[in-house]
Amino acid sequence: MPEAQPVFLRPLKAPAENTGSTVAFGTDQPLVLDSGKCLAPLTIAYMTYGQLNAARSNAVLVCHALSGDQFVASRHPLTGKAGWWDYAVGPGKAIDTNRFFVICTNVIGGCMGTTGPASVDPKTGQTYGLGFPLVTIRDMVRAQAMLIDALGIDQLLAVTGGSMGGMQTLQWAASYPERVYSAMPIATAARHSAQNIAFNEVGRQAIMADPSWRGGDYARSAVHPSKGLAVARMAAHITYLSEAALQRKFGRQLTDRNALSFGFDADFQIESYLRHQGMTFVDRFDANSYLYITRAMDYFDLAADYGGVLAEAFRGTKTRFCIVSFTSDWLFPTVENKRVAHALNAAGANVSFVEIESDRGHDAFLLDEPQLFDTMSGFLGAAAAVKGIG
Amino acid sequence: MPEAQPVFLRPLKAPAENTGSTVAFGTDQPLVLDSGKCLAPLTIAYMTYGQLNAARSNAVLVCHALSGDQFVASRHPLTGKAGWWDYAVGPGKAIDTNRFFVICTNVIGGCMGTTGPASVDPKTGQTYGLGFPLVTIRDMVRAQAMLIDALGIDQLLAVTGGSMGGMQTLQWAASYPERVYSAMPIATAARHSAQNIAFNEVGRQAIMADPSWRGGDYARSAVHPSKGLAVARMAAHITYLSEAALQRKFGRQLTDRNALSFGFDADFQIESYLRHQGMTFVDRFDANSYLYITRAMDYFDLAADYGGVLAEAFRGTKTRFCIVSFTSDWLFPTVENKRVAHALNAAGANVSFVEIESDRGHDAFLLDEPQLFDTMSGFLGAAAAVKGIG
Repeated sequence: MPEAQPVFLRPLKAPAENTGSTVAFGTDQPLVLDSGKCLAPLTIAYMTYGQLNAARSNAVLVCHALSGDQFVASRHPLTGKAGWWDYAVGPGKAIDTNRFFVICTNVIGGCMGTTGPASVDPKTGQTYGLGFPLVTIRDMVRAQAMLIDALGIDQLLAVTGGSMGGMQTLQWAASYPERVYSAMPIATAARHSAQNIAFNEVGRQAIMADPSWRGGDYARSAVHPSKGLAVARMAAHITYLSEAALQRKFGRQLTDRNALSFGFDADFQIESYLRHQGMTFVDRFDANSYLYITRAMDYFDLAADYGGVLAEAFRGTKTRFCIVSFTSDWLFPTVENKRVAHALNAAGANVSFVEIESDRGHDAFLLDEPQLFDTMSGFLGAAAAVKGIG
Repeated sequence: MPEAQPVFLRPLKAPAENTGSTVAFGTDQPLVLDSGKCLAPLTIAYMTYGQLNAARSNAVLVCHALSGDQFVASRHPLTGKAGWWDYAVGPGKAIDTNRFFVICTNVIGGCMGTTGPASVDPKTGQTYGLGFPLVTIRDMVRAQAMLIDALGIDQLLAVTGGSMGGMQTLQWAASYPERVYSAMPIATAARHSAQNIAFNEVGRQAIMADPSWRGGDYARSAVHPSKGLAVARMAAHITYLSEAALQRKFGRQLTDRNALSFGFDADFQIESYLRHQGMTFVDRFDANSYLYITRAMDYFDLAADYGGVLAEAFRGTKTRFCIVSFTSDWLFPTVENKRVAHALNAAGANVSFVEIESDRGHDAFLLDEPQLFDTMSGFLGAAAAVKGIG
């Protein structure tokens, strides 16, 4: 951790029209990755909401999940839909943009303005494709720290996020404890499980099986591996919901047909729902980014960097933690979130743990869950009060 | 139900070399399907083990699951592997072929000798492909009843099977109560859930996304939709295992590499295991059969044929039932199996219910599970004793 004041880095590029703000780092400021490779130049696309106070002490970093981006609380430029955490972030909401300066960045490897496999490799003048270096959750967090430096923020009041966003939150607390006043990882884990790696691998194989993928070199082609990416999204989407929620929402209800078609059209509502999820995803997401970001999740094993002892990742931390899980989440079940809480306890950290009753599965963290918002605003409010933020 | 002695139908074809025995029904004996269409001619491929006794009273019908076939207890002609239920069926085993005459048929729609989408449509002289009519679990059971007739068996001592085999078992007991002396449905449900339909739909979309699928018309092509089928199998395979079993068996263990590759090769053992499952499956299974059989499972909703009241499917039954589930099975969880047991109770049936403690997920029914075999042999032995079979 830098003990000194962070260096103010000058953005090299003007903010892009569609991706919010950007900050760019040249070849003189390479990001050294866990793989040993360097990423340079590097552009980070981000959005901010609310005002940074004079003391630069009210910043909250929100980290997005696999398919998310920087548009946490504002209309998405491609889909026109509300921000992915519009329920939680905004004026008067749990993460109150009247009080806090909220930052959300597109992760490296992403496809909404931050450098990723769809970016141009300056060495070749061509799109990176699979020439893009593999990135890890720690690399994503390193890039975010460069942005936080560039914004002149020494310490974040809070870091939070669900799923892969929770992984980044944990990594922030481990890598930069002095820069994270409080951390709220939601519906996440300190390591990706075998089952989760398995589901990610199915998604990757679906993409790679699509002949339009062309070994990742599809950028100049008119056809992108949309079918493979849609199948990947469909498989993943099932894991975001609970069996109970699927049964309640869809059960065996038929589409607008009156009877079974005795064919392969979408007879059941769950089928047309899943097909819709697959089809709309490909309009806003890059297949290679999907490969890279799922791989980063698979590689995540925070304890491994600390001799296999998770508590060591948090030894001596002064960060305030709040861990949140949902009862019906089977992708990042309560037991994995509790493992983090236990490690924090073992490290003597200030930690609270909340398991929220919900039948909506992993997706619950993105939905209208009042208990989540109460937990958030209570935790953030207390952190702000202790830190002396009005 | 035929009250009279069953008609002895003459097999029209000699047994095929690779698919065990076959019985064939000509256009004069069409199978009328739930869709209203007729299937004729129809060949049913089957295997038998043990000897039918003089009274023709010791026959046990074993019904296979989605990816199974008639080779329940003998070497598979394509893979060379032991039968899929070799643990359970054989001389001195739970389903003891020294005592019982075991019959196992490839379901209609299948690809191991029974008429399916890879068969030649006599109307066109070409492979059916998607011209094959959609079949249901009830249609599969109707075809099996034609075979049982042809074998001169009036009443089966038992019908059993796991997963889709359990669906057939339930359908047998509902459609032909007088012909089923005892029934043991294992790890199954009386209807396919929204989540299970969802996983099947992902598999179908993976196959249909493969350009080699060609709308189902790939038979004359050199290239089959193997990549799509492999992805479908990989996704399904995850659902056959429990999170706990995956963690125990694979965890985050790496393949023979010493470290992460920082690439998209199979770094984790779970990845190479899944890829292997996908690759080997395509050597023995037809992609169109996969579409048809998953669709039959999706359509299964036994209560729907009885005014929505499952107990009505079993009203007045004299069949003895034993329902078996496994604690860690999340594809056909205990609650779905219990629903069947409750309906049987409501119908006043003779039913026992056994939940077996296992962390091996849905796959447990195919594995070496002594408590399953004890349950089976006890249930079958009691049925045989009450029926007066030595």
